[in-house]
Amino acid sequence: MKTDIQIAQEASMEPIQKVAAALGIEEEDLELYGKYKAKLSDELWEKVKDRPDGKLILVTAINPTPAGEGKTTTTVGLGEAFGRLGKKAVIALREPSLGPCFGIKGGAAGGGYAQVVPMEDLNLHFTGDFHAITSANNLLAALLDNHIQQGNALEIDTRQVVWKRCLDMNDRVLRNVVVGLGSKGDGVVREDHFVITVASEIMAVLCLSNDMEDLKRRLGRMIVAYTRAGKPVTAEELHATGAMAALLKDALKPNLIQTLEHTPALVHGGPFANIAHGCNSVRATKTALKLADYVVTEAGFGADLGAEKFFDIKCRKAGLKPDAVVLVATVRALKYNGGVPKDQLSGENLEALEKGIVNLEKHIENLQKYGVPVVVTLNSFITDTKAEIAFVEKFCKDRGCEFAISEVWEKGGEGGIALAEKVLDTLSAKESHFRVLYDDQQPLAAKIETIAKEIYGADGVVFSAAVSKELKHLTELGFGNLPVCMAKTQYSLSDDATLLGRPENFTVNVREVYISAGAGFVVAITGAIMTMPGLPKKPAADSIDVDESGKITGLF
Amino acid sequence: MKTDIQIAQEASMEPIQKVAAALGIEEEDLELYGKYKAKLSDELWEKVKDRPDGKLILVTAINPTPAGEGKTTTTVGLGEAFGRLGKKAVIALREPSLGPCFGIKGGAAGGGYAQVVPMEDLNLHFTGDFHAITSANNLLAALLDNHIQQGNALEIDTRQVVWKRCLDMNDRVLRNVVVGLGSKGDGVVREDHFVITVASEIMAVLCLSNDMEDLKRRLGRMIVAYTRAGKPVTAEELHATGAMAALLKDALKPNLIQTLEHTPALVHGGPFANIAHGCNSVRATKTALKLADYVVTEAGFGADLGAEKFFDIKCRKAGLKPDAVVLVATVRALKYNGGVPKDQLSGENLEALEKGIVNLEKHIENLQKYGVPVVVTLNSFITDTKAEIAFVEKFCKDRGCEFAISEVWEKGGEGGIALAEKVLDTLSAKESHFRVLYDDQQPLAAKIETIAKEIYGADGVVFSAAVSKELKHLTELGFGNLPVCMAKTQYSLSDDATLLGRPENFTVNVREVYISAGAGFVVAITGAIMTMPGLPKKPAADSIDVDESGKITGLF
Repeated sequence: MKTDIQIAQEASMEPIQKVAAALGIEEEDLELYGKYKAKLSDELWEKVKDRPDGKLILVTAINPTPAGEGKTTTTVGLGEAFGRLGKKAVIALREPSLGPCFGIKGGAAGGGYAQVVPMEDLNLHFTGDFHAITSANNLLAALLDNHIQQGNALEIDTRQVVWKRCLDMNDRVLRNVVVGLGSKGDGVVREDHFVITVASEIMAVLCLSNDMEDLKRRLGRMIVAYTRAGKPVTAEELHATGAMAALLKDALKPNLIQTLEHTPALVHGGPFANIAHGCNSVRATKTALKLADYVVTEAGFGADLGAEKFFDIKCRKAGLKPDAVVLVATVRALKYNGGVPKDQLSGENLEALEKGIVNLEKHIENLQKYGVPVVVTLNSFITDTKAEIAFVEKFCKDRGCEFAISEVWEKGGEGGIALAEKVLDTLSAKESHFRVLYDDQQPLAAKIETIAKEIYGADGVVFSAAVSKELKHLTELGFGNLPVCMAKTQYSLSDDATLLGRPENFTVNVREVYISAGAGFVVAITGAIMTMPGLPKKPAADSIDVDESGKITGLF
Repeated sequence: MKTDIQIAQEASMEPIQKVAAALGIEEEDLELYGKYKAKLSDELWEKVKDRPDGKLILVTAINPTPAGEGKTTTTVGLGEAFGRLGKKAVIALREPSLGPCFGIKGGAAGGGYAQVVPMEDLNLHFTGDFHAITSANNLLAALLDNHIQQGNALEIDTRQVVWKRCLDMNDRVLRNVVVGLGSKGDGVVREDHFVITVASEIMAVLCLSNDMEDLKRRLGRMIVAYTRAGKPVTAEELHATGAMAALLKDALKPNLIQTLEHTPALVHGGPFANIAHGCNSVRATKTALKLADYVVTEAGFGADLGAEKFFDIKCRKAGLKPDAVVLVATVRALKYNGGVPKDQLSGENLEALEKGIVNLEKHIENLQKYGVPVVVTLNSFITDTKAEIAFVEKFCKDRGCEFAISEVWEKGGEGGIALAEKVLDTLSAKESHFRVLYDDQQPLAAKIETIAKEIYGADGVVFSAAVSKELKHLTELGFGNLPVCMAKTQYSLSDDATLLGRPENFTVNVREVYISAGAGFVVAITGAIMTMPGLPKKPAADSIDVDESGKITGLF
């Protein structure tokens, strides 16, 4: 069987100008990065912004399991299938992070015959967006420490610096560091931390910004530290806004590439799905809606985190109205949720399927709360039996959902036609009555409780005393009307990663809250969240190589 | 008077395909980065490599002073002047570093009407080469610390890790840090250091590599640490070579841009001139020699450092044979060398000029030791008097050098025609008998002494006991036949920055030596060398901004 990178390298790509032309984009509105990548110019947005929007379809999934679900693969394959049906479709994805490429194998470009290409470029430097974010993030940090060094006129409390440095690398020793050692000229000593670039607030800011003006406003209001008196110090007070914006000028423009079947894909932005909203950029999604009749996008992790943040943060803030949701599951993952170990998922097991399908059930109920029509798709495996598929299909239809099998990993767009047709039927037959889960006016604690009870199925939320105090502080600072960005394990509907299926009789423990003032949300942390990954015993980097002709091997 | 960035932004650039076409490069051999930047494909090199070489002209200067010399400006203007004379010329420059852009004002793209463009791109992310180097450098660091964390099979002594992390940022608090704090899963605690990206050995390696095979060989042999027994541990032993090479695949390809007058410029690589060799890439210089009849290039700092390393490291290792040297001076800088303070340089002062011209004299003598014909040029200022110019002209001619005035800052290529004609005359009249200063076989200490005596004019060299021991150790490890890369203040011919003119009766103190095994030289440090700059009280970042249309202001 061919690996993903082999399939990708055998692909015959079309010049990106041709892919763009199919969307009516002229060459003058492209900024080329080689032959197969381009950024869309600011002028293009001005030209298309008054057009009507296409249909917006979110692809999300049940809670991830080691059995694999294939959310990105389904997103790519569905877009390709629309193309095969003669529809004008665009896929809108997140950019993958460089660091994890060298850690544990695993791509972010789809898989099998449902991939976006050029795969190596996408997974390495791509068009430099993440490097620009790293630079802007670390410029702000350097300006902050330089301000302290040069007299600290803003009276920054070095114990309350909340801005962290970043690198796009899995590097555990940078999680906790001491900087400024040496002599007087080498800075003021303090504890510091590095996060991976996707966890930088600037990544979230870039993804939520409508345009340069909005970007600068958001960058400027980012909080970098507090004074001893508890007053926030912002990036604007360090005069960092303009220089950061200059570094991000090109990163703000969406990137256009193609799938293996030449379907256009806007791959732009990649905020951490843990402590940020985990969706591709607003700019790319809005542009896609003007360029195509059908836009297929995805959100990080399972629907309890990804779809919730997509709806309650991205759609709320950007004024987007999703028209349908595709919920991806696999028979294997449902059986895993029913208690079957990973190495015993191949045999038919209707009992385990029945036990585990409650995870899917809860996600269906959740998505229906947002008023958006749901299509469930089973990403098919060769081991799935007819009886198992029939059971899932009936289960979905009984709950008012459409259902389709997807075989895009093996067959590309051809394998997604049944799903695409079901989505088209749904879009004509069912109207979306999209609504967000909670109002801006609800107190922050009530917002968290609403998400925990309504989406996770919790009995309630436990706030530590420190968290309650900080929620009060944030409300006093004027952040009470912001949405909440939940940080929770992706492996369970609860905040305990080991509870599979549909957990009941549990409470959610919020152990920390903080403000991302630039992004515009309050982050609520419910467990140990790792914002700087480490490398494994045998890193993927060991096997990566490039030959004289520039051909890369071992990347995936 | 217009600023450099205003002049640059008013420039009417030609599409880079057209600039390339003038050199006979077809579009299929370009990898476009927007409309005005391109990388040259690996295939292009294969097509042109058997052509005869053009003439190679090095532009260097007297020791830098606060009065300014204009080495890069002269390089750009001379290339443009060749163009005006109907000659096929290419300029080969270093890429500027991002970090210093936000510190103290000052460009690396020439000045006035002798600049390369697009200036903002060049000074910000350009084609991502430096970001690629940062990533490769920090991947190696992460693999190193991960190796220690996962059991340390290579028995790395954590007190003897010599590989440093890097960022392309002026950030003094990162000079001395402690990493790996936290708990067991957060790594092994050790002291660490960040350097600015241009000081990474990978930058020097990239610039000295002929091709991908050579790059990988050099990356693999870089020494990252020593064991307790003093055995070097290399990047190859960490299995890091292939993954670093994959990150550097595109960075290895030269970048093509243009001057304000559309003269082609290969701007590629930018090794630190302090602890590395400070010249643009071998790959770019060699390609330029195949594409044009005249290649104008420069080296960092004054001729005692820049030209010496260009000749003794770059030319020696790459087999290059320079045909002429242009030595840049200004009347103001020579008077400064004669003891006149910076604010009193405007009036005619023949006495000070006579006193200070000994700096120029020593550089002329030095360059003549390499057997290459020398043309001295005075980068003219409005305050220069006829008598002052005449004095310098006679001084140069008396020493067998050609002489020409250059007015390229004010007039672009037109202002460089007199100089270009003098260079052309020299190339026809005088043959280059280029030779390196010392043999590979000389012991390391003797090489250092040769440079100190012959080039700096020192009476001798003092090696500390530790340095002598390390030179012996490096020789035992098999590095005795490598050239030496001197790290010395650029402000004086001696190792004391305050000694202007032509110091005599001094010794050079070598306080540290170490091996850059990938680059292929032994670094000898003679003073305090700062490999991570800091930001000033009012950083340039304060004034940088970008408007809605994407126009950047305040960059220079």
